[in-house]
Amino acid sequence: MKAALIHGGGDVRVEEVPDPVLREPTDALVRVLLSCICGSDLWPYRRPGPRKGGPGRIGHEFLGVVEEVGPEVTTVRPGDVVVAPFVWSDGTCPHCLAGLQTSCLHGGGWGSEHVDAGQGEAVRVPLADGTLVVAPVAQDDERLPALLTLSDVMGTGHHAALAAGVGPGSTVAVIGDGAVGLCGVLAAARLGAERVVLLGRHEDRTAIGRRFGATDVVPERGEAAVERLLGMTDGLGVPHVMECVGMQSAWDTAAAIARPGGTIGYVGVPNGMEDGLPLRRMFSNNVAVRGGVAPVRAYLPELMADVLDGTIDPSPVFDLELPLDRTPEGYAAMDERRAIKVMLRP
Amino acid sequence: MKAALIHGGGDVRVEEVPDPVLREPTDALVRVLLSCICGSDLWPYRRPGPRKGGPGRIGHEFLGVVEEVGPEVTTVRPGDVVVAPFVWSDGTCPHCLAGLQTSCLHGGGWGSEHVDAGQGEAVRVPLADGTLVVAPVAQDDERLPALLTLSDVMGTGHHAALAAGVGPGSTVAVIGDGAVGLCGVLAAARLGAERVVLLGRHEDRTAIGRRFGATDVVPERGEAAVERLLGMTDGLGVPHVMECVGMQSAWDTAAAIARPGGTIGYVGVPNGMEDGLPLRRMFSNNVAVRGGVAPVRAYLPELMADVLDGTIDPSPVFDLELPLDRTPEGYAAMDERRAIKVMLRP
Repeated sequence: MKAALIHGGGDVRVEEVPDPVLREPTDALVRVLLSCICGSDLWPYRRPGPRKGGPGRIGHEFLGVVEEVGPEVTTVRPGDVVVAPFVWSDGTCPHCLAGLQTSCLHGGGWGSEHVDAGQGEAVRVPLADGTLVVAPVAQDDERLPALLTLSDVMGTGHHAALAAGVGPGSTVAVIGDGAVGLCGVLAAARLGAERVVLLGRHEDRTAIGRRFGATDVVPERGEAAVERLLGMTDGLGVPHVMECVGMQSAWDTAAAIARPGGTIGYVGVPNGMEDGLPLRRMFSNNVAVRGGVAPVRAYLPELMADVLDGTIDPSPVFDLELPLDRTPEGYAAMDERRAIKVMLRP
Repeated sequence: MKAALIHGGGDVRVEEVPDPVLREPTDALVRVLLSCICGSDLWPYRRPGPRKGGPGRIGHEFLGVVEEVGPEVTTVRPGDVVVAPFVWSDGTCPHCLAGLQTSCLHGGGWGSEHVDAGQGEAVRVPLADGTLVVAPVAQDDERLPALLTLSDVMGTGHHAALAAGVGPGSTVAVIGDGAVGLCGVLAAARLGAERVVLLGRHEDRTAIGRRFGATDVVPERGEAAVERLLGMTDGLGVPHVMECVGMQSAWDTAAAIARPGGTIGYVGVPNGMEDGLPLRRMFSNNVAVRGGVAPVRAYLPELMADVLDGTIDPSPVFDLELPLDRTPEGYAAMDERRAIKVMLRP
């Protein structure tokens, strides 16, 4: 079959790889209907030079059709349309039972040894019962792109909102107008936030943010952004801040706009945090920091119900669709910020 | 009157200073019955060389008798025994109303311009209605030392427990066997924690910790301590960690023993955090960080009720009592760890 491989910085290729086969009685084979490129896929893409250890499979977001299951799989059957979270998990360990499948004692990531990655034609899914969630739709349902966002970005935006303590009537600031930030806006609005301020400077993206429920857009950055947010909140600061970037500058803004006693919910993969967290400032102001890698598996049933009944439609984050063969173009488009998020169709 | 002044590293002296007088209609004058030395007073004491700006007043924990009040003071009267939180606050600004008096828009610290510090014979208390809490006891009540802990360490330990999300049945680790850590143990037990593990290696201190409710004591440090805690929790880690030190090594331990999805409640003043918070590890494990400078004013009424009815007695943290004149000996004893916490009687 065909799958994307990352060879190194700026170098993703679609090549022939072995067809996946069942290896464990708890496996399922899934033929991919849709996959996509994540902002975090750009980190290895932007790392100069050849990839350590040679070319590797890439992509961790996909949905597809179950083709075959091992004898111990009971919750999915051939023909089912299923959404895969961005990690696989057994669903039965203490962390999974606590709703933190990203810390599963027996789980792992896509693209690891003998486990396919998402950007390809098919995937061997370990621990299928714990991992996959059946979507009761046909293979050509028009809501598939919206469902695909539940594989990562929509669940991740939801995690940021929960971590920040967003609820009915909340005033929220969302830092970052990437796909996760935009989904964070949608999640905050869905949870009943009254005022959702999106910090972002790309007009095409913030326009989607407004559709998703942003009541205000702040294109300024740094000190100017901080002043805007403080001005909006009687100088008191924002009670709920969602950090959806992961860079030092975003954290500095988050810490500066957070209200004393407020919470920063964060889901941006920490990257280039040279100065670390401004802990002394957070100490003085009792600003809490909650979040991390999102257990999207825990949120999938609830968010799927809302997608299926039309309550939310996160699919506008996909502003470029390409066939799998043209995956390299998708990376280039996202790297150069010509696309928010690229959907791939095998 | 007499009061302690810090002249520089290792140099605290008790000297004559002007008697305080009412300056604002919202002031009260309080004659100090008891004050004490805080672990955080040791930071300037340990800073080598003369103090920048010359000698300064020091001490932020005291209780006393109201001697005189300004015309706008309504909640305390001459003759009342009152406990002062370690900062003063108006009680009416948005942050105070939210229970975060440490972020009061009009408050401040003891020992600032025209405001006396706690280690002295008397204190001009600004914003007396917002700041002071009346204790319905006589001036020679035997519970005064216990009430004095509500000025800082007991409220701070309680804050750490709340920040860590401790509740009935919780498994908790308390890092640090100083006065705050010991009060944290007492607070966790008071909130219904089932298992309270105290990390500390000073046997005299951990003995008090056991009296306060510690079910386990771990004298090991670093990797050995981490192994002990993981062994106690089926390798999963501790859901509620209370960081009561503020040093890098304590934070490293906190991050290493925290269960995925768990919370580190912190009240140790961050000090010497060269490496910053291990954000990537916290990201992977969804470990939350909550806490900061404790709004002890918010907790005073509730904790005072428990002291008065005998539910809690934090006074054993005072293991050395000195007259005010001998304050310098108290600093030396705490600096050399010969005393946990020193009480001063003017």
